[in-house]
Amino acid sequence: MKISLAQINYHIGNFERNISKIIDGIKKGEMDGSDIVVFSELAVSGYPPRDFLEFSDFVNQCQDAVNTIAKKCTKVAAIVGLPTYNNNAKGKPLYNSAVFLYNGKILSITNKTLLPNYDIFDEYRYFEPNNVFKVINHKGKKIALTICEDLWNVQDNPLYSVNPMDELIDQNPDFMINIAASPYNYHQTKIRKEVLRKNAQKYDLPLFYVNHVGAQTELLFDGGSLVINSMGETIDELLYFEEDFRTFDLKDVLSHKNVEYTENERIEIADIHDALVMGIRNYFHKLGFTKAILGLSGGIDSALTAALAAEALGSGNVYNVLLPSKYSSDHSISDSIKLCENLNMPYDIIKIEDAVSAFESTLDPFFRGLPSDIAEENIQARSRGVILMALSNKFGYILLNTSNKSEAAVGYGTLYGDMNGGLSVIGDVYKTQAYELSRYINRDKEIIPENIITKAPSAELRPDQKDSDSLPDYDILDEILYQYIENRKGPKEIVKMGFGKPLVDRILKLVNTNEYKRYQTPPMLRISTKAFGMGRRMPIVAKYLG
Amino acid sequence: MKISLAQINYHIGNFERNISKIIDGIKKGEMDGSDIVVFSELAVSGYPPRDFLEFSDFVNQCQDAVNTIAKKCTKVAAIVGLPTYNNNAKGKPLYNSAVFLYNGKILSITNKTLLPNYDIFDEYRYFEPNNVFKVINHKGKKIALTICEDLWNVQDNPLYSVNPMDELIDQNPDFMINIAASPYNYHQTKIRKEVLRKNAQKYDLPLFYVNHVGAQTELLFDGGSLVINSMGETIDELLYFEEDFRTFDLKDVLSHKNVEYTENERIEIADIHDALVMGIRNYFHKLGFTKAILGLSGGIDSALTAALAAEALGSGNVYNVLLPSKYSSDHSISDSIKLCENLNMPYDIIKIEDAVSAFESTLDPFFRGLPSDIAEENIQARSRGVILMALSNKFGYILLNTSNKSEAAVGYGTLYGDMNGGLSVIGDVYKTQAYELSRYINRDKEIIPENIITKAPSAELRPDQKDSDSLPDYDILDEILYQYIENRKGPKEIVKMGFGKPLVDRILKLVNTNEYKRYQTPPMLRISTKAFGMGRRMPIVAKYLG
Repeated sequence: MKISLAQINYHIGNFERNISKIIDGIKKGEMDGSDIVVFSELAVSGYPPRDFLEFSDFVNQCQDAVNTIAKKCTKVAAIVGLPTYNNNAKGKPLYNSAVFLYNGKILSITNKTLLPNYDIFDEYRYFEPNNVFKVINHKGKKIALTICEDLWNVQDNPLYSVNPMDELIDQNPDFMINIAASPYNYHQTKIRKEVLRKNAQKYDLPLFYVNHVGAQTELLFDGGSLVINSMGETIDELLYFEEDFRTFDLKDVLSHKNVEYTENERIEIADIHDALVMGIRNYFHKLGFTKAILGLSGGIDSALTAALAAEALGSGNVYNVLLPSKYSSDHSISDSIKLCENLNMPYDIIKIEDAVSAFESTLDPFFRGLPSDIAEENIQARSRGVILMALSNKFGYILLNTSNKSEAAVGYGTLYGDMNGGLSVIGDVYKTQAYELSRYINRDKEIIPENIITKAPSAELRPDQKDSDSLPDYDILDEILYQYIENRKGPKEIVKMGFGKPLVDRILKLVNTNEYKRYQTPPMLRISTKAFGMGRRMPIVAKYLG
Repeated sequence: MKISLAQINYHIGNFERNISKIIDGIKKGEMDGSDIVVFSELAVSGYPPRDFLEFSDFVNQCQDAVNTIAKKCTKVAAIVGLPTYNNNAKGKPLYNSAVFLYNGKILSITNKTLLPNYDIFDEYRYFEPNNVFKVINHKGKKIALTICEDLWNVQDNPLYSVNPMDELIDQNPDFMINIAASPYNYHQTKIRKEVLRKNAQKYDLPLFYVNHVGAQTELLFDGGSLVINSMGETIDELLYFEEDFRTFDLKDVLSHKNVEYTENERIEIADIHDALVMGIRNYFHKLGFTKAILGLSGGIDSALTAALAAEALGSGNVYNVLLPSKYSSDHSISDSIKLCENLNMPYDIIKIEDAVSAFESTLDPFFRGLPSDIAEENIQARSRGVILMALSNKFGYILLNTSNKSEAAVGYGTLYGDMNGGLSVIGDVYKTQAYELSRYINRDKEIIPENIITKAPSAELRPDQKDSDSLPDYDILDEILYQYIENRKGPKEIVKMGFGKPLVDRILKLVNTNEYKRYQTPPMLRISTKAFGMGRRMPIVAKYLG
């Protein structure tokens, strides 16, 4: 028996495109002489469809799509993910399902049992959990089919009281298939492999695992579909961050024959880089846009964002605008120009002083000679915002936001100013990681000018301003933020790790009192286990540590 | 036996304040000679605490709080809601619990069984469902204690397969207590009463029901705690949108004695008004702010927002800024001034033309003589945004957003311009409802000038612009939007209701393609069954109807 894994980049709600890609996969499977082509979780709709699932019109279109696809499954069977109706009188209206298609029709439906409802996942919002367990019989083989989270309940303190494979194993399956939509973060690739390996070993069965690939707004699906033998060894691994299609002979997998595969260690910073590039590219292309605009400040964040965008969209499609004020240093201009020249990106210099002066003189009667403060600093950032958005509106660019996670965390940014943008490229990248990424981009030659990487970070909103005037060193800040945000440690626990109590209290208070700003930021490409946005839901009006 | 209902406005994570309010309630109960004082769901933390629940530091503070409260329960018992740890090896780490406090300690813990995970609710994200059912014995009476959703599974197609009261009824309880955090929407008050009445009748038991009151960012809890006898008759109803405390004699309730209560029909528009006023007031006060700023355009939305803010914060605390451009009509100024005079609110006129001209001349070399379009219109809206935010930053005002739900739905607003604000007051109020609300505000005398209510709506961003140039009449638009947003009807279903297909397709496409704008809007006070924000989760990059 031959099994094909189709690792595809779906587009949520774009049924025409998703159907066509799935049918292409079926054809490829036929050409490979395959017996089953496996597509990933909710392939037909794209993942996550979110509240589109509350529209019966949307769910009906998924049904129609799978009926169209079924007709193509005459020579080869297919496993395809989609939402289906729960026809019982009780429970949530839908299941998260996988249909088994053969002989031109739907032969069986398998529903997902374990519904993740943490971090970015909301599956219990829509789906009723499955409680019926049946292997699929195909050409004399028994297949234990599960959906994503169904295999993830193998930790010491399990989140769920059921294990679907514990039920299926009694029916003596020959192998396991798991269809997934498992988004990337820089710990996930390793953890995912361990979880899948554990399953193969625990149930003494080979596992064929198909993951999504591609970006869905902020969620980055890394692909990396896997074939693992019953000893837990990787037989093959599909591409990361790209579509891929491969066919395997079950015989080879059962005999542990590993034809040409040698497992490579993933390089974390390279994966983060590739994930962000894919995130930008998919955001633009799926929205039907080609060109980005961004403000280049001379600092590392905007330089890094521009370099990533140039790789994602092509240098010619990244329009850089330098928006100096009277506080901008000469090197901010020259370094930015050098970056644009290094990458051959178009740029312009647009001075903000006329706009800033106009606002200042308009407001002068109301500011009554009060000393210059954050109000004036923000006028600069917001004037830049207006200019960038005007160019975006006029010429159809999408504005890229260039804030990093450290700033977003402590509220070091101007709402409706530098916090603008359709997409935040590095909003889940700590400042220290931004340096690492920049060095990675420069691994072969200088792309981001060295001076941008080495100079002291500054917002340049007043004379001789430095980030370090108001924030601790980023090494320390990022470590405290990581413990608070990713590890959800409280102030006492972080102080115990060796940080000063006043500093910890100050940072945590900044994070909590700036929730209102992050509520209004663009979606941030997610690379960590805990990104701002859908995966981190905090009250705005609250007092805890605030 | 006497039972007191304590309907309190909690502040999320403000343990000091919540503890002190709960202890006050216990003292009031003592003075009334009460046997039990009942507080609402997650009273100790405030509701919803969201991802604060993922911090053991936060949960531990809840435990400490309830230990402090328990010590005060010597003469009178109390029922208090808080999160507690799940000490089993399996399942989610927490329960949504109610503790029974007496003799200075925690005598028992009751956990919530049915965990709402739809619309604005995310309870399955944090909590393990309960499966142990035990009545509470107190002074010879048996109490069936449940938590909010536990009583809501009484519809024909139940969402859950368990009914906690079906389990508890076998233990022959004398009465029911339900502690809740049931947020307001303009259908909820009626539905809630029906659900509770159904329970009383089904189980033939009196019910004491305590709800939250007060706003938690966008969520508006209306209070209206209830005592219902076993025949389903309302014995008493606590205040709406205000704190309240009342003590009842169980004897009276069991004998159906309804001392002085006559049930009043709620007036929908009055409730919406009171809900929004409470929402503004609580947002400001819980954040420690007193003063609002907003831009008065001369249109109905900003006038309504100002009138609501004046009622919430006091007229003197609402600073109105008129920001005319060359396209503003004279009546925009005169009507706005009249509004400010009617309410005795401070105002200033600040012209945007210098700022707009500065941007236009700065951008002139880049716009290359292209015709004026949305880019120039947005420059006006964004210049207003910069001025309002500068005043907000300088003097510590919170900017109120004045967009209505109809505009927010179709994207008729400028991101980083008139979509700015810390809080959206009427972002869940359709344009047609904005008229209704304005007429309600004018019920006794003209507060919002009649001309503001009767003139044709216009954004005034180009000469002679009218909303009706690009949008259908609001009567029609709002009906289509309501079917799509609140009722989740698809295009085919809406066309069947009698609307033209091209119009329906156009409107639904506008809603879906403007998801990216709404992602960045401020929290919107929620008055409907489906508000933008946490309760409506849509993909940005998607193709469905887009």
